[in-house]
Amino acid sequence: MSANPKDFLQPASTLSHEAIRPFPASRKIYQQGSRPDLKVGMREVTLTPTPSSHGAEENPPITVYDTSGPYTDPSAHIDLRAGLAALREPWILERNDTVQLDGPSSEYGRARARDPKLAHLRFEHIRKPRRAKSGANVSQMHYARKGMITPEMEYIAIRETLRLNELRNDPRYTRLLRQHRGNAFGAAIPEEITPEFVRDEVARGRAIIPNNINHPESEPMIIGRNFLVKINTNIGNSAVSSSIEEEVEKMVWSVRWGGDTLMDLSTGKNIHETREWIIRNCPVPVGTVPIYQALEKVDGKAEELTWEIYRDTLIEQAEQGVDYFTVHAGVRLPWIPLTAERVTGIVSRGGSIMAKWCLAHHQESFLYTHFEDICEIMKAYDVAFSLGDGLRPGSIADANDRAQFAELETLGELTKIAWQHDVQTMIEGPGHIPMQLIKENMDKELEDCFEAPFYTLGPLTTDIAPGYDHITSAIGAAQIGWYGTAMLCYVTPKEHLGLPDKQDVRDGIIAYKIAAHAADLAKGHPGAQLRDNALSKARFEFRWADQFNLGLDPEKAQEFHDETLPQEGAKLAHFCSMCGPHFCSMKITQEVRDYAASQKLSEAEALQRGMEAKAVEFVKQGAEIYKKA
Amino acid sequence: MSANPKDFLQPASTLSHEAIRPFPASRKIYQQGSRPDLKVGMREVTLTPTPSSHGAEENPPITVYDTSGPYTDPSAHIDLRAGLAALREPWILERNDTVQLDGPSSEYGRARARDPKLAHLRFEHIRKPRRAKSGANVSQMHYARKGMITPEMEYIAIRETLRLNELRNDPRYTRLLRQHRGNAFGAAIPEEITPEFVRDEVARGRAIIPNNINHPESEPMIIGRNFLVKINTNIGNSAVSSSIEEEVEKMVWSVRWGGDTLMDLSTGKNIHETREWIIRNCPVPVGTVPIYQALEKVDGKAEELTWEIYRDTLIEQAEQGVDYFTVHAGVRLPWIPLTAERVTGIVSRGGSIMAKWCLAHHQESFLYTHFEDICEIMKAYDVAFSLGDGLRPGSIADANDRAQFAELETLGELTKIAWQHDVQTMIEGPGHIPMQLIKENMDKELEDCFEAPFYTLGPLTTDIAPGYDHITSAIGAAQIGWYGTAMLCYVTPKEHLGLPDKQDVRDGIIAYKIAAHAADLAKGHPGAQLRDNALSKARFEFRWADQFNLGLDPEKAQEFHDETLPQEGAKLAHFCSMCGPHFCSMKITQEVRDYAASQKLSEAEALQRGMEAKAVEFVKQGAEIYKKA
Repeated sequence: MSANPKDFLQPASTLSHEAIRPFPASRKIYQQGSRPDLKVGMREVTLTPTPSSHGAEENPPITVYDTSGPYTDPSAHIDLRAGLAALREPWILERNDTVQLDGPSSEYGRARARDPKLAHLRFEHIRKPRRAKSGANVSQMHYARKGMITPEMEYIAIRETLRLNELRNDPRYTRLLRQHRGNAFGAAIPEEITPEFVRDEVARGRAIIPNNINHPESEPMIIGRNFLVKINTNIGNSAVSSSIEEEVEKMVWSVRWGGDTLMDLSTGKNIHETREWIIRNCPVPVGTVPIYQALEKVDGKAEELTWEIYRDTLIEQAEQGVDYFTVHAGVRLPWIPLTAERVTGIVSRGGSIMAKWCLAHHQESFLYTHFEDICEIMKAYDVAFSLGDGLRPGSIADANDRAQFAELETLGELTKIAWQHDVQTMIEGPGHIPMQLIKENMDKELEDCFEAPFYTLGPLTTDIAPGYDHITSAIGAAQIGWYGTAMLCYVTPKEHLGLPDKQDVRDGIIAYKIAAHAADLAKGHPGAQLRDNALSKARFEFRWADQFNLGLDPEKAQEFHDETLPQEGAKLAHFCSMCGPHFCSMKITQEVRDYAASQKLSEAEALQRGMEAKAVEFVKQGAEIYKKA
Repeated sequence: MSANPKDFLQPASTLSHEAIRPFPASRKIYQQGSRPDLKVGMREVTLTPTPSSHGAEENPPITVYDTSGPYTDPSAHIDLRAGLAALREPWILERNDTVQLDGPSSEYGRARARDPKLAHLRFEHIRKPRRAKSGANVSQMHYARKGMITPEMEYIAIRETLRLNELRNDPRYTRLLRQHRGNAFGAAIPEEITPEFVRDEVARGRAIIPNNINHPESEPMIIGRNFLVKINTNIGNSAVSSSIEEEVEKMVWSVRWGGDTLMDLSTGKNIHETREWIIRNCPVPVGTVPIYQALEKVDGKAEELTWEIYRDTLIEQAEQGVDYFTVHAGVRLPWIPLTAERVTGIVSRGGSIMAKWCLAHHQESFLYTHFEDICEIMKAYDVAFSLGDGLRPGSIADANDRAQFAELETLGELTKIAWQHDVQTMIEGPGHIPMQLIKENMDKELEDCFEAPFYTLGPLTTDIAPGYDHITSAIGAAQIGWYGTAMLCYVTPKEHLGLPDKQDVRDGIIAYKIAAHAADLAKGHPGAQLRDNALSKARFEFRWADQFNLGLDPEKAQEFHDETLPQEGAKLAHFCSMCGPHFCSMKITQEVRDYAASQKLSEAEALQRGMEAKAVEFVKQGAEIYKKA
């Protein structure tokens, strides 16, 4: 912890080596788009050749989706105090529909900027905020509905496709691209994702591109059920812990492991300054729950919240570059008593803040009554709605109850209003749901909210495993992702118990990358199975390093392998610690395959003719299988 | 490691404290059955009262299924060198259909018993083996089909019911027993599990009770889709590691965390003696893959295996008390070439051993041709079949292919034969299967194998996370358990990479207890949700210790909590580290509930009338929510 982040937030040196070192056998590649300033970063994993014992062949490199931005690119110059390059700035400027303000237009933002006591905490290179010209609407949805294909949309089309078109014409990939047919439950994932398809999905409201014009550092990404399933990670300080530099390190750590968006849920000190440091250095969209900061502004007294304080907070955060706001506008006065009989009542922090306000004033929520005013702010900066599920169930017992579904119906009503303003919108979902009730959540969301993207927390499929809720929830997340959820909010092992440390963040992210990828496979997302096939081929051929490097966590995989067989040689050995050198099940298969392949037999023929020959051949060899590596 | 396990396998002292200490706030209770020697062990978790701030009330104790046998009972005398008490012996004797042999009847068993070099390794108190009287059949299926309800069946009925009938009539449990309706996909789980129901399920072959007459130390349990979903854990030494005392410790460790059965997959030294130590001290059924040991007897040369060697191995192990044998009799000569085009070929060790034998001899598998001879051995000791899936897919790419399903159809054919001999049978399943293909596996197994219990490994739902396959597979395991799989074979984080240590075993077991329980909830198993509801109520009421103690891993939960809030006081505090003391979402809900409850209003009325009153009351209180604990 430090009083002065500037002493700490030096060039990359501040960041732990483990947070920024490139992944093994990986290099950053950039796919060139239709214009010079449109380059899409990806990670390419280089593979070793297949050993002769398995029929020597080259193994083509595998490209994987990369959320880490420049942090894993050794050639990139990282200076946390300067922030990342504003890669989207030229695209924003050339649309010529925004103005640069003299400075923050929120009262709070101005007050913080003036306060000399904060000088040591303040990010120095603050860019003056931009806002839509009066009467203009700068949301990607607005452009999409006008038929414009923005550079952001093209960027996304390239990013989601991962060079699939090249690979399809490269014979080295033919076998690796073989994939099972998926079952996407009515989602319509095309064989090829084009910029026009991206535009159309955004125009329909079936997908959103969270990218505030004041966060030009972020790399465009999309959230929608006809695209790769995304995951969100949460960071943020709290009344009981954490400093600015810790939060920045957590952010870099979370994009390294694969967080597609990042929510800053800070409720502690210097929320405004902390957020500035995070956004200026964050390559992925940033979301917040503005009511959290608004509550701090009234010393935690929910009943003292006002629309004016909340409105000022929205503007403050929009001008810093927050890409999406969680707004609990569905927690309506009439729904609150529906939670009375629950086992765990209202567990959403934002939901309970608004519930308390409504009860104290016996008034309808100001988030609901001022919803159109909020839309006006959103479209002036292109901030997307994440309509919060303030009444989500906090236990299996409360799943799919009237309170939850009454709120969901209200969120659908609000989605319609947001869309009238061309404001991008996604819907937040539960929570704690047993498996047999998960699908009803997805189906109802699609129907009530007109296919707006669903963004769920888990769901946790049982309540009995505190300390392991990244697993109880990964089970539910994989299923709801398969059914159509567009983004999964991660849960760490510390859920319900404490604040996640770096190891918990890593565990939570990997569990959710697994859930998201399992869902992509199940939906039959084109090319999703390529990485599985490449890794399995490496496994089968005892290419240990390739097996590690193609995994979601190469470091952990190698560490585990080396615990049992530390010798370098073991990573070239044609056996593993499970069977040992004496007998290995993988090898016999190789012989079956070599045989059938060499004969180019149909299975039936192989069956008929093959056996004698094989029997003889085996005896010749003395039927010894294991050959020294 | 030690040359002489007797020096180490002393009374409990040998076992690590962490392996045998009772769980916090838990005591062993015994449910009395219809006869004095029928007492079913369970674990009762004592809970603290609800604090007055949440409407003071007593919280009744919760009983949980307990696989740990006497090891967690402080009043039990543990002496590893003497073995556990033979609790089933009187039941076996009074059936008067077995004879005690003078000693092992297998050649190998006799040779090991004679060998002076093994004296220091040998378990001393070896009970002489029993076998069915000539012409008799001692399988539980045989008794069931004759209409006999055995003490084993009554034990299971009590164990599966967990005092549910008592609880139903106890008003303190009424709210906790509230549960969602399940979707059991055609399984028929009764409201009450009676001994007669157990008998009927076993008679139909829909469930098995693995309990060899030579393993009278084991506590009866059942594997079937109309009962609680079970999990299996694997231990066993290998050519590259582990000693007898390590294996015994692993066994005790695995039953502590919830392993319902244990497979000893040893392939290293002294397999026979290691197994004896394990079985004599193991309170759960033990399974093996006899072909592994048979292979060691021919120095790993699969083509030198013979029916005679295998047969002798079956008798050797049956007389030690192995409760179920994995037999890969479905790996038929005709199916082997079907694996030629796979990405990962044959990955089952047993499957590849038999494939190699078939190819080398160009003959049909002796496991298949001698299947009826095997049945004769099984019914003489009541060993159950676990018909192995030697051709299971080892990668997503190979899922649900012709090789896999051809073998499954053969297993159905063999199930019929086994049932003609009244031999209990379950079917092993995959493997690596993407989510959208999992249900087809379950449905096909039920149809082709006439509803014999399915016992699956995972399935893993993606290949890209080496180091985290307990998670990739828990996702698939929860789903296939929901669809009807009766037992889930655990996968540890070390899968594909190395040999699991104790921490890996614990992580694998907890992940699988989660999957199994999530499946029980989804199927609507009566009472399954009781523990979730009790834990969630504790969570809501800030009864931290109760929340930890009701979880699958109380130690881990408390450890995580204390990392952020170590002070003892924090465990009484009405807040957690997520929100801190200033504002807490749980509290506002309490107020909503207190209000609606006190007024006994319908939700509609509460909505209409309640708000004014509440508003006033709030202002009176100065609307301060947080009260010091």
